[in-house]
Amino acid sequence: MRVYDIIRKKRDGLELSRDELAHMVAGYTAGRIPDYQVSALLMAVFFRGMSEEETVHLTEIMLNSGTLLDLSDIPGPKIDKHSTGGVGDKTSIILAPLLASAGIIVPMIAGRGLGHTGGTLDKLESMPGFRTSLSLTEFKENLRRAGLSIMGQTEEIAPADRKLYALRDVTATVDSLPFIASSIMSKKLAEGIQGLVLDVKVGSGAFMKTKEEARKLATTMVKIGNSVGVKTVAILTDMDQPLGKTVGNSLEIKECISALRGKWPDDLREVTLTLAAWMLKVAASIHGETFHFAGRDVAGLEEYRKGLEDLINNGAAFTKFVEMVDSQHGNPEAAFKPGLLPSAKMTKQITANREGYLVRLDAEKVGRASMLLGAGREKITDAIDHSAGMILNKKVGEQVKAGEPIAMFHYNDESREREAEEIFLSGIEIGPDRTQPGSAIIEVIQ
Amino acid sequence: MRVYDIIRKKRDGLELSRDELAHMVAGYTAGRIPDYQVSALLMAVFFRGMSEEETVHLTEIMLNSGTLLDLSDIPGPKIDKHSTGGVGDKTSIILAPLLASAGIIVPMIAGRGLGHTGGTLDKLESMPGFRTSLSLTEFKENLRRAGLSIMGQTEEIAPADRKLYALRDVTATVDSLPFIASSIMSKKLAEGIQGLVLDVKVGSGAFMKTKEEARKLATTMVKIGNSVGVKTVAILTDMDQPLGKTVGNSLEIKECISALRGKWPDDLREVTLTLAAWMLKVAASIHGETFHFAGRDVAGLEEYRKGLEDLINNGAAFTKFVEMVDSQHGNPEAAFKPGLLPSAKMTKQITANREGYLVRLDAEKVGRASMLLGAGREKITDAIDHSAGMILNKKVGEQVKAGEPIAMFHYNDESREREAEEIFLSGIEIGPDRTQPGSAIIEVIQ
Repeated sequence: MRVYDIIRKKRDGLELSRDELAHMVAGYTAGRIPDYQVSALLMAVFFRGMSEEETVHLTEIMLNSGTLLDLSDIPGPKIDKHSTGGVGDKTSIILAPLLASAGIIVPMIAGRGLGHTGGTLDKLESMPGFRTSLSLTEFKENLRRAGLSIMGQTEEIAPADRKLYALRDVTATVDSLPFIASSIMSKKLAEGIQGLVLDVKVGSGAFMKTKEEARKLATTMVKIGNSVGVKTVAILTDMDQPLGKTVGNSLEIKECISALRGKWPDDLREVTLTLAAWMLKVAASIHGETFHFAGRDVAGLEEYRKGLEDLINNGAAFTKFVEMVDSQHGNPEAAFKPGLLPSAKMTKQITANREGYLVRLDAEKVGRASMLLGAGREKITDAIDHSAGMILNKKVGEQVKAGEPIAMFHYNDESREREAEEIFLSGIEIGPDRTQPGSAIIEVIQ
Repeated sequence: MRVYDIIRKKRDGLELSRDELAHMVAGYTAGRIPDYQVSALLMAVFFRGMSEEETVHLTEIMLNSGTLLDLSDIPGPKIDKHSTGGVGDKTSIILAPLLASAGIIVPMIAGRGLGHTGGTLDKLESMPGFRTSLSLTEFKENLRRAGLSIMGQTEEIAPADRKLYALRDVTATVDSLPFIASSIMSKKLAEGIQGLVLDVKVGSGAFMKTKEEARKLATTMVKIGNSVGVKTVAILTDMDQPLGKTVGNSLEIKECISALRGKWPDDLREVTLTLAAWMLKVAASIHGETFHFAGRDVAGLEEYRKGLEDLINNGAAFTKFVEMVDSQHGNPEAAFKPGLLPSAKMTKQITANREGYLVRLDAEKVGRASMLLGAGREKITDAIDHSAGMILNKKVGEQVKAGEPIAMFHYNDESREREAEEIFLSGIEIGPDRTQPGSAIIEVIQ
């Protein structure tokens, strides 16, 4: 098997066999195949794509390049959720304790923010002391004790994916559907889960700008998951405007704490509860349809949803959150006193220049403005300011008066505030007529 | 200027500026830009192509990465010819001494054979003692003394092209029109020539399989040459069947010696004289239309051609050939006694299995069969057997009887003779009706 022939085959639009893909990936991971040949193959895949079969094979090869967590000795259904990334997307931090309080084991390996998008690990680390860098033993210990744990990718999980990702990152081959799908899935499937709910974001702030693209990515990932025996469902959700009313790490944690205490914006509630109810539906294929929680039996999506709301209202989900913070070395007091979370020295109100209805609140522009305020990173090695970001006073469809605040910027470094404001305002549109925002939930793919 | 952005720009189908191309090529040649980023760019160019302007820029950048020969102190027009490669294509070896005997300076940097195609350097080296590895000083000395010299690419000529070619060779990005055009032209334009005639081969044994592709390559190279002030003309010639009646290094040299003594097959004469006459026409733009040789004045393509035939018939071209062999350390006696050239231990006659007319003599198949007999190399590092190859008894359009010889194989290693025979026969077709072979000269592009 010659590397040259494999590159050429893909270049010419032919399908690679499992053996050919394994030869490339294993050879590269072991240092036998040089990076310059692999990057030529990556670019050929960028142009030619991969069949679903090739993508499944690539995922399995990367998955099996590292450790697969075995959670079979922990009782209960093991279900995770993954989002393709967006702006203000803090659902994981609400949903993990919520599901754990419903008896689901949630082993979540999460990521960091990059560019205009935020990352769960960065948000959690804005809580004083919170550690996301755990050993697999600690991770499993947390799962056994509390039913949930959220950590970053370790060296042992899918090393081939990590090495390939690093090469994609410098060769402009990140934005390729089969690579995105296989990279996400190789990490998720290593978690020892039985079910997975994917939140595939669509819109200006998402990687997938159109429903068609999102549907294709979702379908591919659902096929990959199911083909290796993990019951997988994907839900397309809106990312044309940010999710919820905060963007930025400690600001989003405050919003999560408020949500876990029952006070949350409609879109955030809608997306979080839909994903959580689907996680239960996926768990039902292992556990049986009926769950018992918050003092009663629940069966079916509608009842799951109501039951989950009960777990918010009776404080069970919040208690799980506190337990998670505690077991990952965070200060649980911060959950009770959000004032203990880092806050920025400076704030600035951004106001409407005219009266009307908010017609557009471009998620990418909001994300990019937040990044400039310090909340995000341009390169993966950049440091972030956990307290920076913004609170959104208005969402699409709401009425605004001239001079009324649309957002409050939070920042410590004013050097790029002006630029942030310009980008933010370029993403805002106020019109004379009320536009109903699109539904937060677009479509379910299973 | 970020390398990532340059890769991405080309990936997205945009045109790169001269500065961006220079940044990549200079950075790579100097070792500042890693090969894995360059190979991603190469593959992106494979898919997106390059505009004529980009291709001209790339050529100039590669050309200026090394030494440009200065031949201005040698009197006479300096004209070269280059072929895109084929099977049995020995025109350079006849044409260089022929032109030199007409007073043209021919500074020829030639290449080696690979796969089914042969190379001028390999053919010349089949003559005992002949050296193609010369210093630029020796090369220039030969030109001053004899008016011609043929040598291999040196370290000083277009080093950026050499480095990029090596990377293209292992990343399946050789077969890309802008790279082929710029690679050829960057080497040719370093020769210090004033005019260039390109022989762009079309057909089964050529890189360009169709006239459309060949025309595109020819047009691009003509634009590049003229844009840097070298008068350039391209001639599309047929490579559906091999050129002449021999394939293989010493066998082809024997055919060249015979041709220089006035005995040559029609197609070889037609292609060689057409290219040679066009070289004079190109030279005329520097020298003036009228040349004086073989005792009379000649002007215009038709007369150039007749005058060149006179130089064959009166022995002047042959004498120049002997002079070249002598000045490149070969044994000039071999020109008079071709029996001194290496000959193979074994021969095998390949005969027709039916009566009729030869309808097809597939150049690629013939080239591949010759390679298997030892005449060529699969990889650039393989050794070749100078005496191996074949003599073709029949060409397309000729009548054959059942059992009559079509070809005579020459070889020393019989291990792959059977395979060679199978491939050869798969390229042969004998039919009941006489097909006229296509004209050897297809089109002139200037």
